[in-house]
Amino acid sequence: MKAKQILLMSSSAVHGFGYLEHSKNDIVKFLNKNKVKSILFIPFALKNHDDYLRKVDSVLSLWGYSCDGLHTKTDQIDAINKAESIFIGGGNTFRLLKTLYDNKLIEAIRKRVLNDGVPYMGSSAGTNVATLSINTTNDMPIVFPPSFEALGLVKFNINPHYMDPDVSSKHKGETRELRISEYHEVSDTPVLGLREGTSLLVDGDKATLIGSFNARLFQAGKTPIEYEPNSDLSFLLF
Amino acid sequence: MKAKQILLMSSSAVHGFGYLEHSKNDIVKFLNKNKVKSILFIPFALKNHDDYLRKVDSVLSLWGYSCDGLHTKTDQIDAINKAESIFIGGGNTFRLLKTLYDNKLIEAIRKRVLNDGVPYMGSSAGTNVATLSINTTNDMPIVFPPSFEALGLVKFNINPHYMDPDVSSKHKGETRELRISEYHEVSDTPVLGLREGTSLLVDGDKATLIGSFNARLFQAGKTPIEYEPNSDLSFLLF
Repeated sequence: MKAKQILLMSSSAVHGFGYLEHSKNDIVKFLNKNKVKSILFIPFALKNHDDYLRKVDSVLSLWGYSCDGLHTKTDQIDAINKAESIFIGGGNTFRLLKTLYDNKLIEAIRKRVLNDGVPYMGSSAGTNVATLSINTTNDMPIVFPPSFEALGLVKFNINPHYMDPDVSSKHKGETRELRISEYHEVSDTPVLGLREGTSLLVDGDKATLIGSFNARLFQAGKTPIEYEPNSDLSFLLF
Repeated sequence: MKAKQILLMSSSAVHGFGYLEHSKNDIVKFLNKNKVKSILFIPFALKNHDDYLRKVDSVLSLWGYSCDGLHTKTDQIDAINKAESIFIGGGNTFRLLKTLYDNKLIEAIRKRVLNDGVPYMGSSAGTNVATLSINTTNDMPIVFPPSFEALGLVKFNINPHYMDPDVSSKHKGETRELRISEYHEVSDTPVLGLREGTSLLVDGDKATLIGSFNARLFQAGKTPIEYEPNSDLSFLLF
């Protein structure tokens, strides 16, 4: 078993930056440390796979990496088994997870990342499916997956695009914090609220918050805790 | 078959009003027209059923209606079969729909409303489950229901708490309109975006938008259409 290498981004887009641009340093550092030159991109969270691949490739190729789309492969499990690294992009989490199940990819990806140490990057929905379950996605349930259980590359959940309550709002829909507290009425799984512009970096048994903002950790029956960038969050892995 | 009588509210809370207060005139008119004196309340969208019943009863009893909680009944199907009217309150749509399935209530409620003309009121999650499916809820998928198909009291979907895009926002999560357009990549079911403070009133074959704001109708492959209060939306029923 090789040490797992995982980079989970809150989002691919951040205000004031181009696509993935805000995470360029983190992505490049992550890939270079792991001697990765080629990336297998999984575009299933959006409808148009070719367009999505083109968008991602146009950025990653500029940075010196080759990028291949899993949707172009006739044998997708074989492609995963041969991948040097895996990147799952954002979009609709339900559509993404359903496609991973429909194409029977869950076990293959899990095995490659957890047993073989193949570097995994996810953003937004690609971060949600990397966790224990998609129970804390923000997305609309546009399709019905066979389960909400996900890849389980980490043993807790993440809420990407985490937003603080807008105290000036007149809207009466639930705040993000209230939605997560409803989840904790039925589950003890910790939820890490990752604000846009932050990521979780996992290197073997070590997990570190990276990026420009705090993260907010929600645990059942406890007051939420704010963690600053560079905080050691390894305790969440066990 | 008696004509169906349905009142679907976007939300129970509206800025500047007490609980259900903004809809008082509509609710009273709806119940009195149908000669209803007692309401069977279904509190399954929230965790604490007793607290929820107390809250709703404290308002409805002031207005002259008696209110009973379905969770207090040993035979819930029998209670539905004897109900003079049914009200399903808001909360988490996934928890609500799962409980309706777990307790085998879907067919009983559907039959009472569609065949027997028993008046149905829903707000927020209680509006979502009244439609064809919960595919267009805003809620977090905290539990896994056996299906996203719902009561189908109307043959289209609703997005309650509909919000216009905030053009000043720096947040990069999907807007409500983008989320609904993702749904229309996989479904042709029309989606009525009901802003807080608006309701859909169904009287037999006639559907009318009521309340203080426009509603926004989303249809696959078409430009969204704004409808003013008192618009006739009967065409959505067929």
